[in-house]
Amino acid sequence: MPLTDDVLSGRYRALAQAVSLVERDDPEATRLLADIYQQTGNARIIGITGSPGAGKSTLVASLTRHYRRQNKRVGIIAVDPTSPFTGGAILGDRIRMADLYTDRGVFIRSMATRGFLGGLAKATNDVVDLLDAAGFDIVLVETVGVGQDEVEVIRTVQTNVVVLVPGMGDDIQAIKAGIMEIGDIFVVNKADRPGADKTVTEVTMMMSLVEEHGDWVPPIVKTVASRNEGIEELDSAIGKHFDYLATSGELDRRNRDRVRIRIETQLKEKFMQHARSVSENWDQLLDDVLHKRNNPHDAAEAVLSATIRVP
Amino acid sequence: MPLTDDVLSGRYRALAQAVSLVERDDPEATRLLADIYQQTGNARIIGITGSPGAGKSTLVASLTRHYRRQNKRVGIIAVDPTSPFTGGAILGDRIRMADLYTDRGVFIRSMATRGFLGGLAKATNDVVDLLDAAGFDIVLVETVGVGQDEVEVIRTVQTNVVVLVPGMGDDIQAIKAGIMEIGDIFVVNKADRPGADKTVTEVTMMMSLVEEHGDWVPPIVKTVASRNEGIEELDSAIGKHFDYLATSGELDRRNRDRVRIRIETQLKEKFMQHARSVSENWDQLLDDVLHKRNNPHDAAEAVLSATIRVP
Repeated sequence: MPLTDDVLSGRYRALAQAVSLVERDDPEATRLLADIYQQTGNARIIGITGSPGAGKSTLVASLTRHYRRQNKRVGIIAVDPTSPFTGGAILGDRIRMADLYTDRGVFIRSMATRGFLGGLAKATNDVVDLLDAAGFDIVLVETVGVGQDEVEVIRTVQTNVVVLVPGMGDDIQAIKAGIMEIGDIFVVNKADRPGADKTVTEVTMMMSLVEEHGDWVPPIVKTVASRNEGIEELDSAIGKHFDYLATSGELDRRNRDRVRIRIETQLKEKFMQHARSVSENWDQLLDDVLHKRNNPHDAAEAVLSATIRVP
Repeated sequence: MPLTDDVLSGRYRALAQAVSLVERDDPEATRLLADIYQQTGNARIIGITGSPGAGKSTLVASLTRHYRRQNKRVGIIAVDPTSPFTGGAILGDRIRMADLYTDRGVFIRSMATRGFLGGLAKATNDVVDLLDAAGFDIVLVETVGVGQDEVEVIRTVQTNVVVLVPGMGDDIQAIKAGIMEIGDIFVVNKADRPGADKTVTEVTMMMSLVEEHGDWVPPIVKTVASRNEGIEELDSAIGKHFDYLATSGELDRRNRDRVRIRIETQLKEKFMQHARSVSENWDQLLDDVLHKRNNPHDAAEAVLSATIRVP
């Protein structure tokens, strides 16, 4: 179909149109995604995760300009509702990023609006595929790292950069609880502020408590994104992480995980749609459990045995 | 079975044993949970959510002592790995809570260890059922509110108390992005610290941006949990929220949601187990998608049509 060809040749308008189809979960999107899937697998998928206020968007902008100077094409997918890329921030921020919006080598898309049919994680992965197939070299996925959908998005990137700021205090404990395990690289942004070295020390200490890093010891990079400081070091750390992924076999494992998660997510979603459509008495089922005539386990078993084929 | 009777009569050891069965996803637990399900529905299920360092555990302890003075039995389920209740904090904290550990009207269980078979959210809900059926009046679920499992846990409580501390700065933005929508009551704990009123103002402002509260305007309660200050006000706010839930029909809606989420979670899990067990070529399927001989959508469709019964 012509749209497929236009997407594959990287036409900006076709890409924007294709992304809209994906967001609407349009049947045409399904066919398109199947058509372009063979052309995926070349983009580097990088997560930029951290609290609002950590300066993720400024870092994304600075990193994007860095890649553009290397003539790489960059896709930006903002899953963070407070990001300037999603219109969630003050106008000044967006004006400072005007150059990115007019650059045809940069594609920016907000996925912050809730309620995607089929799920935010699926839609985000599908848009990554579109950008990948359209020849974008780098896809940056900006996320706040909180919430069920966001966590699922983070699980499917290749390299995850966790952005911190000095003076987080107790906050660092929160990171320990959830985000520490998923950081491949840590950035202490706004490193010109007091306490930057203290934050580096804290992250180093926290890291010593996490055992799951394997052979890769996540580096800690200090940046001042608003002044483009530390961006080359970050690029270099990302490059080294990719080399590690490629040589250790970890890239295959992550890509395989990514495929598995995507299939399972879609499979569960499709199964639930099917289960709901064939169980005319879905409401009755809920009522029975609600009024203790049945229990959740037996209700689930009943739906399962009514829907699956026993070999 | 004798264990069922012992749990229903609220015997402490039987309850501890039953919880262990649930955690191991033992087949006996499934039968037990089905047996006791009819006796559930009387406990108030209250979530206590917030960053580590916010003083959630001290608040839980203080609230528990308050309920004990009213002769109510209290279950505490700690999903937060940094909570003193899970052994994640300094010894001093645990010593300060020694009275709770020796009180047979209080049942404390940590669910912080990862890797529950069947999922953390399912296990937590099952333990809530056990405590509920055993006659506990209140079940407090302490969670850090970050991560996929935790979010699923929060979605199944009746009243969610979000705990903040003064001086959070940018942090409050993070809350906006994820936790603001799920707070029924906000607590500004450590309210003797500078900036407590500023935090109250910030939360009030953030709240005005969220539209989903319906007829309930979440109150903001100032507490100093370590000195038991504000606990009666919090109890009163929780009581008012329950009255609101009951009179508005929202309680039915939440209980129904809870039942739906529990059935769907179990159904998806069971279906995936089934799909994996009947698809001998699951690895082949992943390989095919990984090497672009297939795509995630068509792979999911193939598994679906091989497993479901078409009516």
